[in-house]
Amino acid sequence: MLIILRQDCTNEQCTEVEEAVVRLGYKPLPVPGENRTAICITGNKGPVDPGPLIRLPGVLECITVTKPYKLVSREVHPENTVVRVGGVEIGGTKPVVIAGPCSVETEARTLAIAEAAKAAGATMFRAGAFKPRTSPYSFQGLGKEALVTLGRVREQFGLPIVSEVLDSESVEPMQDYVDVLQVGTRNMQNFSLLKKLGGVRKPILLKRGLAATFEEWLMAAEYLLAGGNEEVILCERGVRTFNDHARNTLDLNVVPLVRRVSHLPIVVDPSHGVGTRERVRPMARAALAAGAQGLLIESHTDPGMSYTDAAQTVSTNTLADIVRDMDVLSGLEPLH
Amino acid sequence: MLIILRQDCTNEQCTEVEEAVVRLGYKPLPVPGENRTAICITGNKGPVDPGPLIRLPGVLECITVTKPYKLVSREVHPENTVVRVGGVEIGGTKPVVIAGPCSVETEARTLAIAEAAKAAGATMFRAGAFKPRTSPYSFQGLGKEALVTLGRVREQFGLPIVSEVLDSESVEPMQDYVDVLQVGTRNMQNFSLLKKLGGVRKPILLKRGLAATFEEWLMAAEYLLAGGNEEVILCERGVRTFNDHARNTLDLNVVPLVRRVSHLPIVVDPSHGVGTRERVRPMARAALAAGAQGLLIESHTDPGMSYTDAAQTVSTNTLADIVRDMDVLSGLEPLH
Amino acid sequence: MLIILRQDCTNEQCTEVEEAVVRLGYKPLPVPGENRTAICITGNKGPVDPGPLIRLPGVLECITVTKPYKLVSREVHPENTVVRVGGVEIGGTKPVVIAGPCSVETEARTLAIAEAAKAAGATMFRAGAFKPRTSPYSFQGLGKEALVTLGRVREQFGLPIVSEVLDSESVEPMQDYVDVLQVGTRNMQNFSLLKKLGGVRKPILLKRGLAATFEEWLMAAEYLLAGGNEEVILCERGVRTFNDHARNTLDLNVVPLVRRVSHLPIVVDPSHGVGTRERVRPMARAALAAGAQGLLIESHTDPGMSYTDAAQTVSTNTLADIVRDMDVLSGLEPLH
Amino acid sequence: MLIILRQDCTNEQCTEVEEAVVRLGYKPLPVPGENRTAICITGNKGPVDPGPLIRLPGVLECITVTKPYKLVSREVHPENTVVRVGGVEIGGTKPVVIAGPCSVETEARTLAIAEAAKAAGATMFRAGAFKPRTSPYSFQGLGKEALVTLGRVREQFGLPIVSEVLDSESVEPMQDYVDVLQVGTRNMQNFSLLKKLGGVRKPILLKRGLAATFEEWLMAAEYLLAGGNEEVILCERGVRTFNDHARNTLDLNVVPLVRRVSHLPIVVDPSHGVGTRERVRPMARAALAAGAQGLLIESHTDPGMSYTDAAQTVSTNTLADIVRDMDVLSGLEPLH
Repeated sequence: MLIILRQDCTNEQCTEVEEAVVRLGYKPLPVPGENRTAICITGNKGPVDPGPLIRLPGVLECITVTKPYKLVSREVHPENTVVRVGGVEIGGTKPVVIAGPCSVETEARTLAIAEAAKAAGATMFRAGAFKPRTSPYSFQGLGKEALVTLGRVREQFGLPIVSEVLDSESVEPMQDYVDVLQVGTRNMQNFSLLKKLGGVRKPILLKRGLAATFEEWLMAAEYLLAGGNEEVILCERGVRTFNDHARNTLDLNVVPLVRRVSHLPIVVDPSHGVGTRERVRPMARAALAAGAQGLLIESHTDPGMSYTDAAQTVSTNTLADIVRDMDVLSGLEPLH
Repeated sequence: MLIILRQDCTNEQCTEVEEAVVRLGYKPLPVPGENRTAICITGNKGPVDPGPLIRLPGVLECITVTKPYKLVSREVHPENTVVRVGGVEIGGTKPVVIAGPCSVETEARTLAIAEAAKAAGATMFRAGAFKPRTSPYSFQGLGKEALVTLGRVREQFGLPIVSEVLDSESVEPMQDYVDVLQVGTRNMQNFSLLKKLGGVRKPILLKRGLAATFEEWLMAAEYLLAGGNEEVILCERGVRTFNDHARNTLDLNVVPLVRRVSHLPIVVDPSHGVGTRERVRPMARAALAAGAQGLLIESHTDPGMSYTDAAQTVSTNTLADIVRDMDVLSGLEPLH
Repeated sequence: MLIILRQDCTNEQCTEVEEAVVRLGYKPLPVPGENRTAICITGNKGPVDPGPLIRLPGVLECITVTKPYKLVSREVHPENTVVRVGGVEIGGTKPVVIAGPCSVETEARTLAIAEAAKAAGATMFRAGAFKPRTSPYSFQGLGKEALVTLGRVREQFGLPIVSEVLDSESVEPMQDYVDVLQVGTRNMQNFSLLKKLGGVRKPILLKRGLAATFEEWLMAAEYLLAGGNEEVILCERGVRTFNDHARNTLDLNVVPLVRRVSHLPIVVDPSHGVGTRERVRPMARAALAAGAQGLLIESHTDPGMSYTDAAQTVSTNTLADIVRDMDVLSGLEPLH
Repeated sequence: MLIILRQDCTNEQCTEVEEAVVRLGYKPLPVPGENRTAICITGNKGPVDPGPLIRLPGVLECITVTKPYKLVSREVHPENTVVRVGGVEIGGTKPVVIAGPCSVETEARTLAIAEAAKAAGATMFRAGAFKPRTSPYSFQGLGKEALVTLGRVREQFGLPIVSEVLDSESVEPMQDYVDVLQVGTRNMQNFSLLKKLGGVRKPILLKRGLAATFEEWLMAAEYLLAGGNEEVILCERGVRTFNDHARNTLDLNVVPLVRRVSHLPIVVDPSHGVGTRERVRPMARAALAAGAQGLLIESHTDPGMSYTDAAQTVSTNTLADIVRDMDVLSGLEPLH
């Protein structure tokens, strides 16, 4: 941490700051400047809390230098983490294709979609049993009945299942039916849920929050790793900005950053990231080209009839097109 | 809802859209234009789901006209809601002053702060027992021990207690110690928690989400009212924008809007809204001038020593100054 | 500047960085840490350009500490700047009320509005002769004819005139008719225009850019002062965020910050800041309560018939109400 | 336009709105609903100004349906526009590579960079003679001397030249040296400059504004076309959001949207879009995969020594890598 002193800071105040640093167990190193002095803190093993320092008279601001994340960092764990589930590798050499409808629908329809998705090249199946909805009056998902349907999909097509967990109470009932638990964008900083999932023996797909900074996202993953669960898949799904031409702003700039800074695999959800069916395929291409290790594509045999998110759901034909695009893109020289 | 057809929409496609509207139980009303036709939906009693319509060939976009909120709306409930707790009225004629440290600290210190806050003019006490923290390595609150301390504050000073509830599991243990349950900014769309709190017999202070639109915020409140809990207090606490000169961007534009559109009381938290101690007092003034019905001020007898959020915590002396400002501002002609 | 080295930075690389700092004429001060080393630059008289340093192998990032603004800073010029124009003081003891229609309309109507505005308590008159419009097909202002009308307003009512200057070419023709030249939000970083206006002998009202950081705004003012024009009035008018409930997000958090960091006066434009007529008065109150030294209010004798920005224009009756509010607010203890 | 009436709108007020619509020359079409009535406007040939309508008693809001852009729209001009300059096609079958340093440097160095860029596969050369800088104290470009250098580059290497025009005054002096005039992000809504450039016989590269909506960007292009200049190239270069992990947020979601909605070519500038050298190549790949028709890459033979924007400038070696990536990506099936 770097403590910037005010221009009018007195010698006594400066000494007081240095003493406070010593009391906290660190070493102060004064850096005299033309107009003001700064004090570097050394000897710390992790981030320093600015609380007790910013309050001191004479202090203008405290600039944090040390990164707060640790277990998710590539500096601590240089090799890529590869999450393995039912024969599928996420973070391995081949991008993963996670597909399915936004919500689980009737069993017959869900099985039909799963069959078509598998034929199109999907390697995992994703559909919501419990749906987070902005309105209390909107369809909230089929719940436990949907879990049973997801179990049938896995049994019949051998596709590992991804589904969203909304709260701690649902973790237990989902255990038998779901292979990867998704934490949704609105729950990225639901710390009670993250603590619970840190102790679970299932991989977690952690969606980035609607307005989460890169650091906050990694820190949410840090909760899972600190809790003992190292199988974490990051998922970029667009953030909220002033843009009104798309549901969200897909922030692909994070993809090469995650690849460099963290060892965790990253997948991209272009369906939520752009929010309109016609733009899903070009954005899926862009995500892979940027270095994403997989895609999450809302897809349906009859997209317009989807229970939820119809506007951004593509047909399983388009899904097959996207899988073909992946072959072309696999010709790009690996960067990471 | 208004369905905008593409310029190249054929007569058959147009008929198909009208038939789909009829099948959904509504009445279509075609609106011919120079370049394209639009179809108005009439006969609906609430918002229409665009899902089954946007998918039809010939449809360019669907524009929602009906507002999704209902129970929180002043059109449905014209009189102001006044929440009463322990002799204090929120949403009544006098603004409420909710003060206290960010986190509950030692019992002695917390009681000292409460005493000073009461002397300064605070009418309610707020402090966190369970803290949502970005980092798993940061102080997470004193938990149940803190609840007991809050009980002492109420007993000793007669101040009603506000404290944040992080998850459904904590609702029960908090019942005996806390008078108003706060839903924090990161949990505004934790729908499991909102459903649980809809069934609780305690007022809820609902903070606006970091990147929540006005409508999403009201819809979160709608969950509480739809669940049967009508004692909801809205709290603006700043939103996330590109600004880097303050912790958040306090969006006071919502204050007169809430006052007009909803019957629920609104309070403002300038401490989080600006994030630096020196600017809390001017922003507290601005919030009241804009029409806020109360303030939530992080305050401490020795702000710099706060366990958390020291940089934005004001002294109880400053709190007293803010209470004095309220007297001046009460001279403004009421607008609502 | 603080140069953070990579964890794997070698001793040779570290030495190379130090030598580069010396070559640039500064003094390097190494700060050893547990995991990595940082190098503080000392001996600089202004901000250091990170360009030649960030490129060096071994460097992770460069953190700028020195503020780039100088002439606008209160550290350099401790007393408030008071801009005087035609007997009116901006930045003095009494807030200024700048009112008028968005665009100059017919001479008769403009004079009628000016008369009503003056009666309501306005101390300056503002109306656009040249209008920046998003669409080339929208009304672009009455141009030179409008300037003549503005001259009449000044002559007849003694109100100093504020009007927007769109380009360097218009500076000359505006000289005789306009007392304060307004730089609009879209031109805040039109550096050619700023350089031209630095050499002009008229006060400048500098609106904040739609997405300008606090620092960029002060740096735009710095262009004017560096060019020799010290009569600069800052104007907050809302910024662009994800919010869709208002035309812009009025960022009142900047008001107490400008008051502390700069000696320049700051006024607020709640008309653009919120964009809907009904919310202008509460936001005008909030702006003054936060410490603004004046208001810019779009007002009209028949607001709905305004040539432009009708939705946010208030009646001159409302303007009179706002002036009455100012009396109440003048009872607040001065903070700056 | 759709006019939404208030729930408490009386019959007289409703009639008054209909009469106002008729007076404006349009036809009103009432749409009765359960709670409120709406009035559709028909018979308009372009967007309707809400000004005179929003003011009427009984009106809640006016929703614009007609798009304001016309000449830039693919509905009006279905075939792709191909801009041809010095043997290079922008918007044709092959993506264009515009490369060069941020600023023109010494003649020797600039020629060396041009030679290396051409060898790497660049098809156009771009460098700034006049630089828009946040600080008045930063390097402002070499000006006319730089133009002469750019003339040499064209002469010696046959590369068409792109360079930024900061103001109307510079248009004339640039005529002889520059083939494509760039309008920078800060000038996207400098309407005086846009009007001037509408009358110029040179292609314009129009960068998207820092916080420009999609519609505002197209409307800026509309100014150029309405002025008579149809050779316009759109350039996405990142927008400003809450993100702090990159200089800007590259909004690739616009790429497939421009391709569908407009006939104008679109190129992407990943250098500004991400702002750090290491991430330029992955984002260049992503831009092309999303459908961009060209790239603008800040590149240098010795990036760290760039006069400006060193942190985001890549080496000409990396430029060659990016050109190789283009070959792989050209294998993707065309979508537009």
